Parts: sequence; C-alpha cells; structure tokens
Amino acid sequence: MITSTSNAQVKQLIQLQKKGKLRDRQGVFVAEGLKMFREAPMEQIVKVYVSQSLYKRLEDVGRTGGSQEGGTDWEGLNRVSHEVVEDSVFRVVCDTQTPQGILCILRQSQYDLEKLLQTPAPLFLVLENLQDPGNLGTILRTAEGAGVTGVLLSRDSVDIYNPKVVRSTMGSIFRVPFLYAEDLRETLGILKSCGIQSFAAHLEGTKNYDQEEYRKGAAFLIGNESNGLSEALAAQADTYIRIPMEGQLESLNAAVAAAILVYEAYRQRR
Amino acid sequence: MITSTSNAQVKQLIQLQKKGKLRDRQGVFVAEGLKMFREAPMEQIVKVYVSQSLYKRLEDVGRTGGSQEGGTDWEGLNRVSHEVVEDSVFRVVCDTQTPQGILCILRQSQYDLEKLLQTPAPLFLVLENLQDPGNLGTILRTAEGAGVTGVLLSRDSVDIYNPKVVRSTMGSIFRVPFLYAEDLRETLGILKSCGIQSFAAHLEGTKNYDQEEYRKGAAFLIGNESNGLSEALAAQADTYIRIPMEGQLESLNAAVAAAILVYEAYRQRR
Repeated sequence: MITSTSNAQVKQLIQLQKKGKLRDRQGVFVAEGLKMFREAPMEQIVKVYVSQSLYKRLEDVGRTGGSQEGGTDWEGLNRVSHEVVEDSVFRVVCDTQTPQGILCILRQSQYDLEKLLQTPAPLFLVLENLQDPGNLGTILRTAEGAGVTGVLLSRDSVDIYNPKVVRSTMGSIFRVPFLYAEDLRETLGILKSCGIQSFAAHLEGTKNYDQEEYRKGAAFLIGNESNGLSEALAAQADTYIRIPMEGQLESLNAAVAAAILVYEAYRQRR
Repeated sequence: MITSTSNAQVKQLIQLQKKGKLRDRQGVFVAEGLKMFREAPMEQIVKVYVSQSLYKRLEDVGRTGGSQEGGTDWEGLNRVSHEVVEDSVFRVVCDTQTPQGILCILRQSQYDLEKLLQTPAPLFLVLENLQDPGNLGTILRTAEGAGVTGVLLSRDSVDIYNPKVVRSTMGSIFRVPFLYAEDLRETLGILKSCGIQSFAAHLEGTKNYDQEEYRKGAAFLIGNESNGLSEALAAQADTYIRIPMEGQLESLNAAVAAAILVYEAYRQRR
C-alpha cells in the first residue's frame, strides 16, 4: 500500500494529471472514477490505483456476494495491475473534489484516418481550436450518441487527455475515434477527395441546417468558442449553413451547435 | 477610487459573488465582463465597478473617437452609477481568472408565470434539480436561440445567479424569463390546465422525440445530471419520448438533451 505523497508513483500520477507533454511522451492518460474503470477496455489499462476505503468495500462485496455490482468491480480489479493507496494520499492525487477512490492509467488510443474513411457514409466532426475541456468532452459524448464516425481536431485544440475532458466524455473517450490533424485544411482536402461534403455554420449561410442532406458522407466544422471558425478554414467548406436563432444571441455554445448538427444528420440517417 | 481590499464595497462584492442567500436578500446579482455590461438593461443596473486600467482605456477612446466601440462603453458607463477600482484590488474581487475589468451589480428579475402563459403556444423548459452551473447557463443561452418562452426550475436546482451560470448564459440571463417553483409538480399541473403538453425523455418512451408535435403549447422536462428525472415528476408528464442514442451511452449531457429537444420544437415551429 502507498502511504506517502512522496512516493514516486504518486508524484508521477500528479504530473500525468497536469502535464499533457508528459502524457504524450509516455503515451498514457489518467481516468478517474468507477464508471471510467468499468468502461475502460481491459487492454488499454496500464495500472489502477484504488483508495484504501474503496478497496475494502469492493473486497467485502466481492468475497461475499460476487454477483453484485461491487463484486464485478472486484473481479475486474483483480484482472489488472493495481495498487492500494491510503485515503489521504489518494485525495491529493485526484483531480476531482469528491474522488470516488479509483484512478486508472490507460494507454492512449491510435486511430487511422484512412480506416475511418472506409466506413460507409462516414459522419465527421471537425473541431478548430476548441478550448474548453467541458465542451470537448460533451462533444465526444454527443458524437457517440449520434453515431459519429470520428472527431478531427486542430493541433491547437485543448488536449483530449486533459482530465476534465476525459471526465466529461462519460466514457465516450474509449469509443469515439479521434485524431489531431497537423493541418486541418489538408485533412478537409482528404475528406473532400473521398466525396465527403463539409458543412460550416456561417453567417453567410443561406439555408438552415435542416434544409441540407447529410445521408451521404458529411463533415461538420465547429470553430473556437470565442472567435468561431477561422476564415481560412471556413473558406474550405463545401457548404455554408445557418443554425437559426431567435433573440439577440450571437452564437450558440460550441457543444450545443455540434449537437444540433449531428443529431439532425442522425435523424436523417435513421 | 477604491484602493483597498478592506473597502466595504469590495467586501460586499466578494460576498455577493459567493453567497446566494445574500444575493437573494438584497435582490441583486453580479455580472462580469464587457459583454454583460453592454447587454445589461440599464434599468437593472445598480452599480458598475471598473478597473483603473479599463477605465483609462475607455476614457481615452471615449474622449477622442466617441463613435468607436469603446466610446459607446464610455457613454454607457457615464449614464450609470460607477466606481473605479485599483487593478490589484479588482482582481481580488473577480470570480474569473482573467477579468476584463468591469463588473456590474444588477437587480434580480421577477417573472410571472401567468403572464408567460399568455404567450401564444408557449414553449417551456422544466429543469429538475439541475446542478451544474455551466449546464444551466448553456441551457438559458440555447433557450433564447430556440425562442423558448420560459425556463422553470425546481427549488433545489443550482442558483441561476451563481457567477458561473451568469457568465455562461452569455447575456441570455437578461432576456430569457425564468422562475423557481416551490413545487414543480404543482407547476406542471398549472401548465396542463392551460393545455400545455409536457414531454419527458424517458427510457419507457416509445416514439423518438422527432415523431411528436410541438407546435402547440409544449414543455420539455429535463432531469438532474446524474439521476435524470425523479419518478414522481416523470409520472406527471403527458408523453414519454426517446432521444435515440448509438453506442453504449446511458444518457446525453443535460444541456445537449435540452438543446436537441427545443431545437426540434423550433424547427417544427418555423
């Protein structure tokens, strides 16, 4: 059992939560909470850290009534490399205010655009310079719901392995393919060459978003929270669309705009 | 100019940011940033606090080129009661990490359900025990975009005047009517007696949300982020609907679910 905050693994965990570069160098990320532990693909798990009190609870349930929810967690835990951490030390490691007592180090995923492009009538979300972790997490979650093929991000977007992003995906980070593009305009070019039509919500759009067809390969472009899409990227879009708005709003929240668009595509595709 | 953090007004401002009860007792709330200042209805403004450096900037623009953006701000500022605050003190008062240098104390709004019910074919969002400030702010913003008549909240929902909520409404808090209900079930009863049909996204829903009609008076019920709608409130809904989901998702983010529903209503009403 780890009993000190000066333990090397504890120090490492704290750094991994904070530093994107360290995560990338090691090819790992950190996910907190029972839900994330339960949904994490076994082969992605490098190591699991459990607080002493949660460990006891899982053990109690696991040894008496193995079929209960806690019992499954106990079995799962015993199938992976894990370490018990004293409660007070565990709280120091955690990014959340009320930690559930479990934290996983996971291998980062690698996706291949070419493979994603083999999906029939793929549906993409293209995110340019998205900055808010909660927005990105929510977008991944919504993307899973709407059956999005993949999420493509510009290099300058928030790190998808930021703990706040990971948490707000509610597990979708394990299931929705994503890729950071060196040059998003180049990536849009590749999509275009594969017959995928790209749509940008834009002030110059004349048709409402629900007046276009998204049954074939389609990609929606979503811009930065404050500045929207750059003119350079918007110029690459095949079609400008409008999300109509009442009142005096300048724009919708980025995750909301993405949701309205992908759920319209999903509605048409059902 | 206020130059000390022990100034009575500064202490008061800090307390108003933190304490909902104090806000309610005084019938005011605090909004930060230039956008909020610009969009605040003049008659709601009690007092404006400006950092020394922003004040200088506005004054410079205001005195030379009055037609510029900053000039309008300068004029606006001089029409309301305001006070200049030394930069270092201003930073202490602010809830944001990178304050823009302006902060308004505003009178809370009072809305009347009876009046809202006089709107032809009103559209309501009914929020039960919503907890995340960002979600509530985003819901208000989306509600304005979709032309929602009013947002009705259960007493145990997050305080709409929480600074994080106010900020994430992006100004919609000044324009979207809202009401906290003592008993949400009673409120639903009133809506029903006025011929408003209520819809709850529910696992037992058989029709998809886009297969129902929302052209007449309609209300969407949105539940708590972790637990969804209580059975007691869900039982009051006239119609259960489904938001279909691919993948292994258990639910969508509350603000996303609300957005999909009100934008479908808005689509049908256009």
